[in-house]
Order: sequence, then structure tokens, then C-alpha cells
Amino acid sequence: MPEFLTLLPPDQARALLFSNLGSSRPASQKVETVSALGRVTSEDVIAPHPLPAFPRSTVDGYAVRARDSFGASDSLPGYLALIGEVPMGAAPTLTLLPGQCALIHTGGMLPPGADAVIMLEYTQDARPAEIEIQRAVADGENVIRTGEDVATGQVVISKGVRLRPAEIGGLMALGLLELRVTSRPRIAILSSGDEVVAADQAPRPGQVRDVNSHTLAALINQAGGETQHYGIIPDDFDVLKARAGLALAECEAVIITAGSSASIRDMTADVIASLGSPGVLVHGINTRPGKPTILGVCAGKAVIGLPGNPVSALVNGYLFVVPLIEKLLGLGEALPKATVRARLMVNLASQAGREDWQPVRLVQTADGWQAEPVFGKSNLIFSLAAAEGLIKIHPDANGLAAGEMVDVFLMV
Amino acid sequence: MPEFLTLLPPDQARALLFSNLGSSRPASQKVETVSALGRVTSEDVIAPHPLPAFPRSTVDGYAVRARDSFGASDSLPGYLALIGEVPMGAAPTLTLLPGQCALIHTGGMLPPGADAVIMLEYTQDARPAEIEIQRAVADGENVIRTGEDVATGQVVISKGVRLRPAEIGGLMALGLLELRVTSRPRIAILSSGDEVVAADQAPRPGQVRDVNSHTLAALINQAGGETQHYGIIPDDFDVLKARAGLALAECEAVIITAGSSASIRDMTADVIASLGSPGVLVHGINTRPGKPTILGVCAGKAVIGLPGNPVSALVNGYLFVVPLIEKLLGLGEALPKATVRARLMVNLASQAGREDWQPVRLVQTADGWQAEPVFGKSNLIFSLAAAEGLIKIHPDANGLAAGEMVDVFLMV
Repeated sequence: MPEFLTLLPPDQARALLFSNLGSSRPASQKVETVSALGRVTSEDVIAPHPLPAFPRSTVDGYAVRARDSFGASDSLPGYLALIGEVPMGAAPTLTLLPGQCALIHTGGMLPPGADAVIMLEYTQDARPAEIEIQRAVADGENVIRTGEDVATGQVVISKGVRLRPAEIGGLMALGLLELRVTSRPRIAILSSGDEVVAADQAPRPGQVRDVNSHTLAALINQAGGETQHYGIIPDDFDVLKARAGLALAECEAVIITAGSSASIRDMTADVIASLGSPGVLVHGINTRPGKPTILGVCAGKAVIGLPGNPVSALVNGYLFVVPLIEKLLGLGEALPKATVRARLMVNLASQAGREDWQPVRLVQTADGWQAEPVFGKSNLIFSLAAAEGLIKIHPDANGLAAGEMVDVFLMV
Repeated sequence: MPEFLTLLPPDQARALLFSNLGSSRPASQKVETVSALGRVTSEDVIAPHPLPAFPRSTVDGYAVRARDSFGASDSLPGYLALIGEVPMGAAPTLTLLPGQCALIHTGGMLPPGADAVIMLEYTQDARPAEIEIQRAVADGENVIRTGEDVATGQVVISKGVRLRPAEIGGLMALGLLELRVTSRPRIAILSSGDEVVAADQAPRPGQVRDVNSHTLAALINQAGGETQHYGIIPDDFDVLKARAGLALAECEAVIITAGSSASIRDMTADVIASLGSPGVLVHGINTRPGKPTILGVCAGKAVIGLPGNPVSALVNGYLFVVPLIEKLLGLGEALPKATVRARLMVNLASQAGREDWQPVRLVQTADGWQAEPVFGKSNLIFSLAAAEGLIKIHPDANGLAAGEMVDVFLMV
């Protein structure tokens, strides 16, 4: 299978992959809310009761009937009969009649009859059991009404949302101690290459330790997937096809890091083509690093062939594998990728028509962050370890000029 | 203890807290590299051998002695004797003599005598066992030299670095299957408030479920800390002091979410003052939400009192608790916080002299991201669940105008 006949831009390549995956519903499972941080909801979460469940004061002060305060001011204060104090954590036993007020603390429950709270600062003890009020308050002022946060039956968290601390807290506030989330997709990782040995082995001359299995596993775990390793496969079509076929049957997606020579890349493409229809969708991406990346779909599952170079494999992992995990997790609208604005320190040349992703180091200066390109052949994993992020050079640019402000995507 | 006499800006308050914590060395432990994602190195990592360990070709082509190619061009090609092929994953058994070349694949080990590689594209089979070369190459061209990625004894990862997929891969490339990282700091969480009940209880009128323990635990775990819960404490000085004292003895920092009324906040400050010297450092922060936040150091450990309002507690968790965890983890230079540039959709008023943190929702449009403020009293946890991020309104501004571009800090 000839490669590089048509090189798709990364965004188009990803869209083509995803459109061939369809939109099957991810598997789901019930988990405890306290353990659900980072998981993705598989269904809308509905409020079983309102929040708050009773009207609450937002200030320290006196619960009043708002109309009793009308006209009150510094120069012409009003006077209300103090009938007691609202206890914290219990329903008030008193009921406010016209002309009465009750001491209340922040978070306290409004007594029946009260509809507003006057802040302590605008009151004064007058006589025993009488409070002078120096402000008028409107109905509902300094009060959170029942259901003002959420109403019964309201969708409080939509399907497809990744749970953050705020959502965990919201669920607990509603007493929802467990919820349904999507299952972590299991992703197969295969390393191919006659020169690759396991990291716990001492490489002989001509051999190198496996790097890509580990960078990609870390990336996949971080994105919310689980990984299953299928070992280091020799450069043999039948062996690779058998292992990849097993991986495809057992996992929800397969990542193969192929050797770097053209013949091995072609073999990887042939294996993907042999695993099922439609097979190879994209063979060659219009980007650097990562031109030899292969995207395919076999038996409804994504199969991605990444270059063997550790830098290419990892950068393309950020470009293709992380979005794939997010899709398999059922993440709805993706959040924007946060970036750091930085000033580029040197000119960066780029081939027009190609999308480049340049690793950069970030350096703090009095003028803000500076981006310093980390140059290095794409085999050098520690060149990537030295970089905080990537800058994208658009295909319609011939490069970027020193002094330009750029958006740095952090590689976290 | 009177509060709000001097309100420190958040950055100054944090700096004061940290300067009182000193710089004691965090505890460390040995972990397996494959499980070390997100952990922080407790010592410099040194390369035990060079990477690569032998000179490697970066292309498919012919290994040559560069001087044998000098002068070769399309119009005046050179001719070299082909003496064999370099196998992948093994040391070549052949040695290049003047006028000779050997077939080599990307990643292959250069045979003795060779110092460069000519790409396949610039060669042609001439006669049997003879290759026509149409380009000259310089010494070292298309070759990664031994130690070009890292040299023996080089610091490959500094102390105080949080391990990302790139570092995990780099460690494995060096056969470093375990390494020393800092221990996860154990953070105590205490919720105080007579009105607060555990999330698994049905609140009676006047009661609310505990939210802050859960939002803060999620935030702390996410930042790399471990949490220990000390329960829901009634609003009683002696009880709170006893529990907080126990927490201080057992953990590396203590977070107390106090009730929201002024008297309860003062009680929290009094408890912190009673736990050890210097006690309360900051009582009241010049920010919204979060003015009542208390920062203290007792017996060399940070004790933070957060407001009881769920929104204030969580926003101030991002401002103070996350940086504290990063400090306790021994993180070196902090990475810049990534943000999303968005256009503010409405005017936002702010009190000059105070730093505001306004929750916003992000909406994608053809013109990029728009930031829509999520308004809501700070008791409403679901107002924060509806927001993707926060925008900071500087204390020297009176607010922000609709149409302005703002940096949105994502609440992840």
C-alpha cells in the first residue's frame, strides 16, 4: 500500500476517523460519587429535590416581613419586636407576625412569616426585645429561596460531562451517593520493531528499549482510558496481524507503534487493511512530526498506527489518541484546550502547506512567558521531556517570526 | 479576633503563608516508573548510560563514509560498492572500507567505518553490488550520534518535576524502572457547622448536606494530595480545637471549612490561633468570593480556614489549597496556568481595590470562544458546576467591558 499519496491535514484526518466510528453508546457502570472525579456521565443527572430545600439567609441579621421595613432609613428608623433567635441546623419554632423580627445567622432557615433579612450592620438594639432597623429590604432580599440553586426534576449535570470537584460537590449536596458513568475504554498497545526490547532488558548493540508503549500508556491513562499491552512484536506480517487481531477482539481500540522504516510502515498499513472494513482511512498526515501516522477503522473500532519515533508517537498521541479516548468516553462538547500566551524567541521556518507542531520550553521573564523552541531530531525522547508545550504552525504560514506572540499548548 | 482589619491581596496572602512554612524537604518514596505519572521527582535523575547507545540512522538509505560522497550530484553521480545490509536489532558484522556502502534502515546501527547515511531517494541501483549516489552528505548527516539525546551522567530530569508521559518514556528508555518521588502530602479536612449533616443523611428542615468536604477532597486528590476526613464538627470551640489539634498532629496541613456567620468564622480563627505559633497570618483576603478566608501556620504546618459557602470554598481552594499542595509536593518552578482567550459578553462591574474571580461559561462561536458570566449567590454549588472557568478582575480595574478579550482559567 503506497503511502503519502494524499496527505490529509490533522483536523480532517481526525474527522474522517471519527465519522467512520459512528456514534455507538459507550458502555456504562455505576460508581460511588466520591470516586467519580474525572469520570464522564453516561446519562443526565436529575435533581431529586430542590436546593436549597428551605429558604435560607445569606447574611447575619434579622428575619423580617419586608413590608414592615418599608420607609425605614438612618434618619427615620423603624422598630420591630424581637421574638427570638433562629437556631442553626433546625427548623425555627417561631412564626413571624406583623411588626416582629427574629435574629438569624448566615445559612439559617427563614421562619414562617419572614420573607427577607436585614443585615446586622443596619440594625441596632433599641430597648429590650426591640430592634431598630435603619434600612428597608425588598421581598426576598438577603434570602436564597427554596430551589434557587436547583429545582426538583431539573437536569443538574448533562450526559457526557467530565466530573470536576464542583460536580462531585453538587451531587453530594443532593444526596446522590452514586451515579452512572461511562466505562473506561480499554486500549490495546502494540510495539513493533525487531530492534525494540522491553524496558527491563539490557539492550545489546543495535537494540533500543521500548519507549512508546510507556509514553502512550501514560497518555491514555491520563485521558481516562485503560491500557492492555500486547508486547513487542517482531517485524513479521503474520505475527503482527495475529496479535493485532487478538487486540482488536479484546479492546475498544488498537494503537500500533510501527517501526520507522518505510517498509515496516507499509506492513503496518497492510495489517490494518487486513483486519476488517473499511481498514485504512488515512495513510500519511500533513504534519510534522507525524507524517507516517495511519488512521483506520476495522470492525467498528479505531486502529491507529503511530510512527516509531518516540517524539512523533507522543505528539501524535496528543493529536489523535487523546481525542479518540474522549470520544470513546462519550465526552460531549469538548472543552477548549487551554494555552499559555508566550513570546517566541527565534524565527521558526516551516514548509507552507504543512501543519507543524514545534516543542517549546517556557521561560518566565519580567515581560511574561517566552517560548524557546526545543530542537532535536524526532527520535530524542528527552528533547520532548525538556519541552513544556507545543506550538502549532498553521499550514498557510511559512513559519513564525521571532517576537510574535504564540499560543503554547501544554503537554500535561 | 477581629477580622477584615487588613485585607491582603490573594498573591500577597499566599506568599506570606508560604514564607512562614519554610522550605522543609518533603518526604520521599521509591515508586515504579510505570506508576509514577503525575508524581514529583524528589531528586535529580541521572542518565546511567548514553542515549542512543550507538550511532543510528534516521532515514532509510545507505551507510557511507561521508568523504566518499564528496562531489556526487545528479549530473555527476558517484559509485560505491554495496557490501551488505545492516540488520535491525543487531550489531552490523560488516566494516565499511573506503569506496564501500551498506544498506541501512531507519533506526539501524551504523557499521564501523561509516559516518553518514545517504537517503534512498538520492541513490539508484547501478550494477549488481554497486550503488549510484546522486548527493554528497556531510559527516554525521542523517545520523544520531551516540549520546546525542543524553550523555552518561547528565541530569535528565531535575528534582521537583511532575512526571508527564514524556518523562515516563524517557526513564524507561534508560531502563530506570523505579525512581524516588515525593510522598503525597496528607491533608486533613474538617467541616464545621451545626447545620451541616453528612451527605448520606436526609437533612431535616434547617439542615444541609456537607458539600465542602467533597469538593475539597476532589481538588486535593486531583492536585496530588491525599485526604483524611475529620468529620463534621459542631460549632463549639473546644470540640473544634480538639479535632483540629488531632488533625494537625496527623497530617501535613489542615483545611477547615467554617460556618458562614461572622461569629463562627471568628471561632475558627481563634482555634487556629490556639493551635500553635505563629497562628493566624491572614484573616480576610481582598477578593470576592473568599473575603473571610483565614491563612495560618501552626507548628510549621499550614492551617487554612475557608468560608462555608460552597462556591467561596472551592474558588479559594483553587487559589490557596492547590498551590499549597504543589508546594508540599516539592514542585519546583510552577508551570504557567493555561487559559482560554474568550470574548466577554456583558459588562462586569467590580469594586476597585478588590480582586474578583468571576465564574464564566464558555460558548463556542464562529468568532471563537465567548465568556458568559454565571451569576448566582455564592451558596449555589450548581452555579459553579455550570461554569467552565474563572476570570480574574484585577484590583485596579472597576470591572470589565462587554467585548473585551479575557483569559479564562479553566476549573478542571
